[in-house]
Amino acid sequence: MDIQTFIESCIGQWFSQRSSYQFDTEKAESHKSELTIEWLDTDHSLLVSLCQQHGIDPNQAIGGQTVSWNSSSDYGQKKQTGSTILIVIPDNNTPQTGQIIQSFQSKPSSQGNYSLGEDEALTLILEVGDFSIEERIWFASPNLRLRTSLMKGKNGYNRTAFYSEIRRLPPQEVA
Amino acid sequence: MDIQTFIESCIGQWFSQRSSYQFDTEKAESHKSELTIEWLDTDHSLLVSLCQQHGIDPNQAIGGQTVSWNSSSDYGQKKQTGSTILIVIPDNNTPQTGQIIQSFQSKPSSQGNYSLGEDEALTLILEVGDFSIEERIWFASPNLRLRTSLMKGKNGYNRTAFYSEIRRLPPQEVA
Repeated sequence: MDIQTFIESCIGQWFSQRSSYQFDTEKAESHKSELTIEWLDTDHSLLVSLCQQHGIDPNQAIGGQTVSWNSSSDYGQKKQTGSTILIVIPDNNTPQTGQIIQSFQSKPSSQGNYSLGEDEALTLILEVGDFSIEERIWFASPNLRLRTSLMKGKNGYNRTAFYSEIRRLPPQEVA
Repeated sequence: MDIQTFIESCIGQWFSQRSSYQFDTEKAESHKSELTIEWLDTDHSLLVSLCQQHGIDPNQAIGGQTVSWNSSSDYGQKKQTGSTILIVIPDNNTPQTGQIIQSFQSKPSSQGNYSLGEDEALTLILEVGDFSIEERIWFASPNLRLRTSLMKGKNGYNRTAFYSEIRRLPPQEVA
């Protein structure tokens, strides 16, 4: 699988079950959310301006994705919505690795790296403020995506999270 | 990292925080446990007899590990203890891949495969009864091990679990 195919495989609607664990408080939590992942074209104004902010030629990007989430289905929990943008800029000669730009709403965007392994797991590494975040994403099947994230702060590991994500299929495709 | 080093890196005492998710009931659970992982020598009678049961020359194994768990520290939950044995038999020419034998107490042992990726994540694939289990294990640091497992039954995916495992260090090494 190449990086373009991997990112395209993420596009769609997903039911996301998140389990997180906070190291300092030893607190575990579970949350549900609906994710919408859409393709972001290389000529999209958001992609172009984010690349320019990071001194990267937008023509080097293969595209990106916008990820929106909504936790309305998580009854009894505070509703959370939000979105993030991920832009993928492969290295010229080794497109299984490259740079990423990630933008969280209302926060400064961050630059990092990706690596798509032979085991078809995508690793994203980002520095966000005082934290470094490592995320791994892989597909158990085309309609089951698994994802872990590990957040490290100045004083060591801070938080892990694991996401089991099931694709929401149109009714005619469920059978 | 080679497979021998990887298995050796697992040896020790670990505090394990597990989050699991059952697909059919959409139920998420969290559990704590203490893990003890010990090296199993190639001349250990358990290793020799398990290899023989599976028609494998014990001399081809590099060794294995016994994993014992105890959930006494998980207050308010039913106490669970148990142990499992994992034996590693590398392929002759490509030792990053090979066979495994896993034995759960009082259940028939199972044979499967491992693959150690360039991203230093170890993938184990086992058929246990009617289920296939895929486990991924990697180290965020020498003292923080992350692990996912995905269980698939005849009717599709059944359960995922994610483990954040922190090494228990002797008091003098904690500083």
